[in-house]
Amino acid sequence: MKDLSRLCVHTITTRPWPLARAVEAFADASIGGMTVWRDAVPEEGPQQAGERIRAAGLEVVSYCRGGFFPHTDAQKRQAAIDDNLAALDEAAALGAPLLVLVCGAAPGQSLERSRQQIRAGIEAILPRAQALGVRLAIEPLHPMYADTRSAINTLRQANEMAEAIKSPYLGVAVDVYHLWWDPELEHQIARCGENAHLFAFHVCDWRVPTRDLLNDRGLMGEGCINIRQIRKWVEDAGFDGFHEVEIFSMHYWNMDQAIFLKQIVQAYKEHV
Amino acid sequence: MKDLSRLCVHTITTRPWPLARAVEAFADASIGGMTVWRDAVPEEGPQQAGERIRAAGLEVVSYCRGGFFPHTDAQKRQAAIDDNLAALDEAAALGAPLLVLVCGAAPGQSLERSRQQIRAGIEAILPRAQALGVRLAIEPLHPMYADTRSAINTLRQANEMAEAIKSPYLGVAVDVYHLWWDPELEHQIARCGENAHLFAFHVCDWRVPTRDLLNDRGLMGEGCINIRQIRKWVEDAGFDGFHEVEIFSMHYWNMDQAIFLKQIVQAYKEHV
Repeated sequence: MKDLSRLCVHTITTRPWPLARAVEAFADASIGGMTVWRDAVPEEGPQQAGERIRAAGLEVVSYCRGGFFPHTDAQKRQAAIDDNLAALDEAAALGAPLLVLVCGAAPGQSLERSRQQIRAGIEAILPRAQALGVRLAIEPLHPMYADTRSAINTLRQANEMAEAIKSPYLGVAVDVYHLWWDPELEHQIARCGENAHLFAFHVCDWRVPTRDLLNDRGLMGEGCINIRQIRKWVEDAGFDGFHEVEIFSMHYWNMDQAIFLKQIVQAYKEHV
Repeated sequence: MKDLSRLCVHTITTRPWPLARAVEAFADASIGGMTVWRDAVPEEGPQQAGERIRAAGLEVVSYCRGGFFPHTDAQKRQAAIDDNLAALDEAAALGAPLLVLVCGAAPGQSLERSRQQIRAGIEAILPRAQALGVRLAIEPLHPMYADTRSAINTLRQANEMAEAIKSPYLGVAVDVYHLWWDPELEHQIARCGENAHLFAFHVCDWRVPTRDLLNDRGLMGEGCINIRQIRKWVEDAGFDGFHEVEIFSMHYWNMDQAIFLKQIVQAYKEHV
């Protein structure tokens, strides 16, 4: 039987469950890790949540998500930086070693300008990240999110920014959903390896057809992504961390989450 | 007042109108050209349709669309080639100087394999294109269509294929909707210019938010694409052809097409 110690599930994947229920279910399924989304942190706060997760035998893999730095308005850019500093404090309290950045984009300005603001935002929060021992991962997003979610849409761009800023606390996250189509993917994953900055690996699948731009991700194996191929590239680049299942799906959120979790484990065994 | 002699509208943009109605309306609006979609060719056939368009004072700009070469099944690949040969004959009868290729993708195989089949398909139809005097344009499609519509998702890929096959009858089509997000776009458009193979320029806009993956394109100016910037790059590359308005939109198809056409003309004047 395939070992599940490197399987990690994002809280948003089983969004209908409160954190405590997800912790219990993931642990019962022998899943190794959990990535916590900000909206899943219960009232008890991140420190208690972290203790709860570890007490169940799960590892806190990362905290999702910071970013959204670009704004046409300077005050909003400062507010975004402040919010990212708060997210770093929460990540540290949770015991998460990594904060994932969905970098943002502002439709009222060029993508170049948004990228300058992303760089400035990352540079502004990097000292706090280092002081707290929490690393940052730039997650390139699919080009269909270039309007409002991210001006960084290829792994090449994420690599270039990480290399330009250059810190052991800054790397990239590879999500097969965003990057599978890119003819440069193998090469750019290898480039992450050379720079030792591949910090996270997210899996799901691209449904054919995809019925919604945001919330119709597929379970591994039900779409057209060659996940095993990408996993091999990632491992050839030296990555030995968790395989994180991150699925936003109205379809799956509407079903019994216990049954869905069983399907996730099965799909992981067969397709990752 | 801005000259409309280089404005072209695709029949699919005003899809509810039969060809004869569209011809009359475009001519009344002093629009210079029309791109004819295959499903818009009336029973009278492509030759009569072409004569009708020219008699109204409009130029036939291109014929949409060929392509869809990749299939896991060899018989289907041959059927696709045969269908493209028929499309070339129709384009010639219509008097269209260009057939636009939406190249296709087959989810059961790798994108690399699909690209090999696209190349084989183009090479199979190129002699007929040349004999008929109809040029072919590879249209790179947005990465969100990499599952079933095109394994060619960036202008770099289209340029590479056009340069590899190399024929005065093969070039590329630049559509702002598919390419606006690409950080390499300016450079790749200039590269088209060096090879004199930029054959078509399509405009519309990317709505924020976009509500549907296929049929929610925006009118120029209502989204986040800097169309004027891309137009400048295209013209700097030596392109002096039509600006083709290609909008798939349930929203606009559901409204009075005469009012919509007035909005198209206005949006063209203000934003292209």
